[in-house]
Amino acid sequence: RIDGDRLWDSIHETAVFGGTPDGGVKRLTLSQEDRKVREWFKSQCEQLGCRVSIDEVGNMFALRPGLDDNLAPIAIGSHLDTQPTGGKFDGILGVLAGLEIIRVLHDADYHTRHPLILVNWTNEEGARFAPAMLGSGVHAGVFDRSFADSRIDAEGVTFAQAIEAIGYRGPTPLGQTRFAAMFELHIEQGPVLEREAIEIGVVTGVQAMRWYDLVIVGREAHAGSTPMDMRQDALADAAQIILAAQDVARRHGGLATTGQITIAAPSRNVIPGHVTLSLDLRHERDGELDAMEREIASIIEDRCQSARATLAPIWKSPAVRFDASCLEAIKKGASAAGASTRNIVSGAGHDSVYVSRIAPTAMIFIPCLEGLSHNPAESASKKHCTLGAQTLLNAVLFHDQI
Amino acid sequence: RIDGDRLWDSIHETAVFGGTPDGGVKRLTLSQEDRKVREWFKSQCEQLGCRVSIDEVGNMFALRPGLDDNLAPIAIGSHLDTQPTGGKFDGILGVLAGLEIIRVLHDADYHTRHPLILVNWTNEEGARFAPAMLGSGVHAGVFDRSFADSRIDAEGVTFAQAIEAIGYRGPTPLGQTRFAAMFELHIEQGPVLEREAIEIGVVTGVQAMRWYDLVIVGREAHAGSTPMDMRQDALADAAQIILAAQDVARRHGGLATTGQITIAAPSRNVIPGHVTLSLDLRHERDGELDAMEREIASIIEDRCQSARATLAPIWKSPAVRFDASCLEAIKKGASAAGASTRNIVSGAGHDSVYVSRIAPTAMIFIPCLEGLSHNPAESASKKHCTLGAQTLLNAVLFHDQI
Ligand SMILES: NC(=O)NCCC(=O)O
Ligand SMILES: NC(=O)NCCC(=O)O
Repeated sequence: RIDGDRLWDSIHETAVFGGTPDGGVKRLTLSQEDRKVREWFKSQCEQLGCRVSIDEVGNMFALRPGLDDNLAPIAIGSHLDTQPTGGKFDGILGVLAGLEIIRVLHDADYHTRHPLILVNWTNEEGARFAPAMLGSGVHAGVFDRSFADSRIDAEGVTFAQAIEAIGYRGPTPLGQTRFAAMFELHIEQGPVLEREAIEIGVVTGVQAMRWYDLVIVGREAHAGSTPMDMRQDALADAAQIILAAQDVARRHGGLATTGQITIAAPSRNVIPGHVTLSLDLRHERDGELDAMEREIASIIEDRCQSARATLAPIWKSPAVRFDASCLEAIKKGASAAGASTRNIVSGAGHDSVYVSRIAPTAMIFIPCLEGLSHNPAESASKKHCTLGAQTLLNAVLFHDQI
Repeated sequence: RIDGDRLWDSIHETAVFGGTPDGGVKRLTLSQEDRKVREWFKSQCEQLGCRVSIDEVGNMFALRPGLDDNLAPIAIGSHLDTQPTGGKFDGILGVLAGLEIIRVLHDADYHTRHPLILVNWTNEEGARFAPAMLGSGVHAGVFDRSFADSRIDAEGVTFAQAIEAIGYRGPTPLGQTRFAAMFELHIEQGPVLEREAIEIGVVTGVQAMRWYDLVIVGREAHAGSTPMDMRQDALADAAQIILAAQDVARRHGGLATTGQITIAAPSRNVIPGHVTLSLDLRHERDGELDAMEREIASIIEDRCQSARATLAPIWKSPAVRFDASCLEAIKKGASAAGASTRNIVSGAGHDSVYVSRIAPTAMIFIPCLEGLSHNPAESASKKHCTLGAQTLLNAVLFHDQI
């Protein structure tokens, strides 16, 4: 049985590493705050008799031996990094529910057939270093180490510099640890479960997502003496494109978001001549996302009559369907926990997306307040956290019997 | 007679202070580059026998005695600071043409009745510290010293700290120096003179201008799991407002520009929850500007259905009409120089705007390439610079006879 209070306390214990005055958590990947939560995590796992190894991109693996060490371990994992405007649950719940499970098994002196491995993946958020799910992507062989090392944050610091700076470049070779399966518990980050008062979402897959950088080059000119019809205003073009991309997304039933925008040499009385912005496009179907991308590319060509725009794709994660046997284990696990369920597709990306390429994988969602995430007010109830962790434990134990 | 080559050489000599690889000048007010050009300016004036005094906000006054020292001096002035994407001529031409005039008079051993005073005004651009025309505004009593000192740049440095850092807090009390008149030569920064092939613009006034800060507060949320219709996207609201303000300006025959925009905690996969942007509105008539402001304020209220927006006025400079006798002197001066002229209203603000409140004032424009300014490619011909300086000299000498 999951100890809901203990799990809840651990969540709040880690929330001090990067805790913000508004109750949120700002723990950018490979920051000093991330180092602190990693050290806390390592010591907790070691106290439970686990061996913690760290790979070359900082992914942390805590191994609890099984009865049969010829079997590949079953993984439980998520991430401890957050957004700049992060909350206490996104990623963290999945790691700490795994910790709670190891505590329960440890207290009960219960030994699974498979070894268990609890993972903290590096840079899931993609907030400091694009793209998201970088550590799990490297583990799965989607990216290589030199690609990860070359990622650059807004201050010009590389991933390689940041990981050396906090001492988390580990000796474990990449992708060495094979998994029999992986299970990840996460808050939904969307409104569906709460709206329908369902306790557990059985996550059948993850929608497709693509990231782009858009650079618009117009012409700097005087705000007071340049007639409106003689301007090459890169920001006005950017504004049109941002809104048009959102219209395209609405028409296709997808999503479009711009979360970053920068004028190269901003000044109140200068018409912007160089603007950079991000574009995040998502859809449940890859084909629809192709169509959205095509429409937006042609809108950019049409609208930027005066300025020159370059749309550079920087990341592409196709739609994913999770493993049937893992989903079966989750359904049985939720039912044994007495939880109501429904199938759901994840709008957010998760480490399970990449792990699913190399091992049977599935995810469990619990509802979160108003579907809110990437926000300091992100919240989930103790009851749902407990139910989610119990479902996770049950699913792992069912899968262990296969 | 103006020595056009000497003037041209001086312009290029100062362009090294803050010169950029693309041929522009980045010499933000009170920066180290500004200190260097100030020192150069001081030494040039002193070599011509002028006494240079510096007031409490760093305005520099180079005095050349007249035949009758009971007469108030005639001022010639502009500014040596530039935009981040500045050129070689904006402001600089007006100061260096004044220097050339003093050189000519010095070489000819010619003595005017009035003393002459050549002024380099602090922070005309308003790029580092808002508002624009700050030094001349303090001199004219429009702003007080503590207001100037409290201005803050994007890095959080105050005007007071910046002026102390370069050692340009002078002992001359503010507004002490009274002027019999002021004449300012400037590039047009707009397309009119070039299009009509006119050599000299007789600047009858300056349009009204207002600056605002707009803060939009939405709600940070996940880019992948928040449905389009549940978003409080502060950047989408900003994009709509930027475009709508420009539409309002077009309809009224005015101008609207956003030159700065910042997301508080930018991340690619976070819907922006807090956006700050600047708004610069201009019109030749104050009443029309009132109407533009009202329309834009009501658009902001209408469009920001989900987010909360606050429009804060931070600067207001009413439309200005220059002095008839000064304009007369300029017309006669241009005609004596053999230049074609037309009347023109300035779209850009200038130090003459504030000086006109305390002394008879007028301005002279010359054409600039493609009307371009606040851009490294800003350019004016040696011929036009020479004609402008000759007109300025003639106007000063005519006015000296009144
Ligand atoms: N779960 C989560 O917030 N992941 C971040 C990656 C993304 O979906 O943008
Ligand atoms: N002349 C000039 O560029 N002045 C800056 C003030 C403004 O018009 O915005």
